[in-house]
Amino acid sequence: MKVAKFGGSSVANATQIRKVGDIIKTDSTRKCIIVSAPGKRNSDDYKITDILIRLGNAFKNNVSYEEELNIVIDRFSEIIEELELPPSILMDIEESIQGVLTNNNYSTTMKLDALKATGEDSLAKILSAYLSSIGLESNYVNPKEAGIIVTNDPGNAQILDESFQNIYKLREKDGILVIPGFFGYTTNGGLITFSRGGSDITGSIVAAGVKADLYENFTDVNSVYTVNPKFVDNPKEITTLTYKEMRELSYAGFSVFHDEALIPAINEQIPVCIKNTNNPNLPGTHIIAEKKKDEKCVVGIASDTGFSSLYVSKYLMNQEVGFGRKLLQIIEDEDVSFEHAPSGIDDLSVIIRESKLTSEKENNIVQRIKNELNPGTVTIQKNLAMIMVVGEGLMNTVGIAEKATAAFSQADVNIVMINQGSSEVSLMFGVEKEDLARALQSLYSAFFD
Amino acid sequence: MKVAKFGGSSVANATQIRKVGDIIKTDSTRKCIIVSAPGKRNSDDYKITDILIRLGNAFKNNVSYEEELNIVIDRFSEIIEELELPPSILMDIEESIQGVLTNNNYSTTMKLDALKATGEDSLAKILSAYLSSIGLESNYVNPKEAGIIVTNDPGNAQILDESFQNIYKLREKDGILVIPGFFGYTTNGGLITFSRGGSDITGSIVAAGVKADLYENFTDVNSVYTVNPKFVDNPKEITTLTYKEMRELSYAGFSVFHDEALIPAINEQIPVCIKNTNNPNLPGTHIIAEKKKDEKCVVGIASDTGFSSLYVSKYLMNQEVGFGRKLLQIIEDEDVSFEHAPSGIDDLSVIIRESKLTSEKENNIVQRIKNELNPGTVTIQKNLAMIMVVGEGLMNTVGIAEKATAAFSQADVNIVMINQGSSEVSLMFGVEKEDLARALQSLYSAFFD
Repeated sequence: MKVAKFGGSSVANATQIRKVGDIIKTDSTRKCIIVSAPGKRNSDDYKITDILIRLGNAFKNNVSYEEELNIVIDRFSEIIEELELPPSILMDIEESIQGVLTNNNYSTTMKLDALKATGEDSLAKILSAYLSSIGLESNYVNPKEAGIIVTNDPGNAQILDESFQNIYKLREKDGILVIPGFFGYTTNGGLITFSRGGSDITGSIVAAGVKADLYENFTDVNSVYTVNPKFVDNPKEITTLTYKEMRELSYAGFSVFHDEALIPAINEQIPVCIKNTNNPNLPGTHIIAEKKKDEKCVVGIASDTGFSSLYVSKYLMNQEVGFGRKLLQIIEDEDVSFEHAPSGIDDLSVIIRESKLTSEKENNIVQRIKNELNPGTVTIQKNLAMIMVVGEGLMNTVGIAEKATAAFSQADVNIVMINQGSSEVSLMFGVEKEDLARALQSLYSAFFD
Repeated sequence: MKVAKFGGSSVANATQIRKVGDIIKTDSTRKCIIVSAPGKRNSDDYKITDILIRLGNAFKNNVSYEEELNIVIDRFSEIIEELELPPSILMDIEESIQGVLTNNNYSTTMKLDALKATGEDSLAKILSAYLSSIGLESNYVNPKEAGIIVTNDPGNAQILDESFQNIYKLREKDGILVIPGFFGYTTNGGLITFSRGGSDITGSIVAAGVKADLYENFTDVNSVYTVNPKFVDNPKEITTLTYKEMRELSYAGFSVFHDEALIPAINEQIPVCIKNTNNPNLPGTHIIAEKKKDEKCVVGIASDTGFSSLYVSKYLMNQEVGFGRKLLQIIEDEDVSFEHAPSGIDDLSVIIRESKLTSEKENNIVQRIKNELNPGTVTIQKNLAMIMVVGEGLMNTVGIAEKATAAFSQADVNIVMINQGSSEVSLMFGVEKEDLARALQSLYSAFFD
């Protein structure tokens, strides 16, 4: 049995939904279908979820939300009409949205969550009707009915363990089950959404719950690429990678999907496949628990910008029990998480995402370090990019570090930081942002050309 | 004005002391002379300080110490006789040692410190007399007279700042000043020793205090070598290195001298020169504050064994504010200092010196990590060696990492860890202990052949 999730671009309009219908029709083991809200039809388009958020904010602020409501209804109306589905479905959708807006039992945050969820919910109703119209036995299944029970954290719901045995019972239901992604219900019955991109979370939860043989994640790219196509033309595709490799790649620049969403599927060791709704016959990228021995050691090169390095030096630092811990405590006190902390003998660099630092926090951190740790030097280097060479078994392969560092040197790129712990999965380099493209191109040539 | 310190092997017997006399005679700017206690005359010999420690322990435990006392007195007696100095000097030395043993105002720890100090003190008296006998104007100067004021930490005295202005006044004294190394006095007048190897500390303190033009550290090697001669035959000598480079090299396997001893000299930016008493005309190794631009980027390769790596992995670790800090806190609670903490996305390795871990501490740490941090994996990898490629400006030179990693790969050595922060001084690699020699030989060839 397979669980298939279709992302926003896969259900953006009637043409796309027809492709989804064809995909479901060709494989009768595609039992559970999870859908996103309609995404962009072209690069200038809007996503329905964004419009619903605007609608919710307008409602909250007591200003007119008619324009937003019309955009949402028009989009669904157009899809329903083009798919030649009965107008009663549109009426049902309109009633649901109005029902949320006029329900006085909701708190404001709950109302926002419930409004956001109408995007996925409406699309699930449409897709289920469409599948029936093309001769498939299909049922819309609300997450409450599916048993998706979550914590009461609006916009950031966490799944509760009891959900999985509820979901397992979906196996007994007849026909194809179309489930809206992105939300669940508290034990009190309140609707709560996952974090943004949460349809991936629902897909992964349902795949884990029904113990699927495969979780297919349909999107608009043929596969995961070995390097960000923004930097290298037509990079090679990754056919297979492990959960760990996916996680490391996701850290930096591989935004194919919401990587944390995979946790439930990983816990149940469900294989995952990333496929393209527009090219469903291509193999896509498989994400599995364990790698075969003979497979290529380096699977991909990830990168991300927006890092700062806080550098602290102090003579005899390494003999001072607690120095590193105190430094991290100061950073933590400002509610800043650190990414890495490579060190020399008498110095320590702490790599931080710039998005987590404000200039106030930065000043507080530097000032406290000066006052409390009596350092020789404290400086902050900005505009760093991180590059990760990713592959399981990398650490046990002699020569990978050489190949990587040679690529930097051929591109005349100075390495600001190198970090490789006992992890077998990645080798990390820090470079100045302006050197990033050159470094990636050279690394790509070295490992994949 | 120069300050010259002569180590234990340089004053081990009359022959060596004559060489010291010649060295002092050839350069009239050698004003302050610091001496160690007599060291080994050959590899099977004993060091006087070790015998004095045995003597002290025997005295403390109320058992016979006659044998030890005789060894000490015999050695000084032999030196005095061979140097044809008046017997009154030996009587003075004997009286001093007996005075310490019979003084009832000393606590046991203070008595041990005072006994240990008699090695340096006696030798200083002998050298001063010898210098006078060869026609140099020379005075023995006790550290109390020199104004070396220290904290009351027996065996681990720390210099007090007020000492430096006292010491500056030594410039006004006539003739050569011979000062015993290794000890100072508290403000109450109690004799307290520095940590072992403390004559280097006295030398550095006096050099800083008198604002010497050069601090010469005479030992029994021609210079500092680019790599440990235990692993590479006849390695090249280092002619110049910076304080920072010396410190990084000292961290791992470069035990030419007590590197922390340099702090007072570094603070005053006094240049340091390591020279060989047996080959005083060789240039030796100069240690200076700043490097000239055109000098070789990599100056040496240091290494040390006896490291363990504590590896902790946890899915989504890097989003958990405080994870790294909590881990370091657990280690600190066991009074264990950490050396480095390289990390991946969801894992962190903490490098610890094995000498600081007992199996009890190890168990406590692992158990607390399991109980408190809920990790995916916790493992400890033992028998690691660290290799440091050291050189200022290393980080700004493209290709150093490549050269180093290529050397590992040519030696078929797997790199367990790489660590390079924003420090400009060193690039650190972890390897398995059994791979150390091969890795060092290959690195040496790459950088120095």
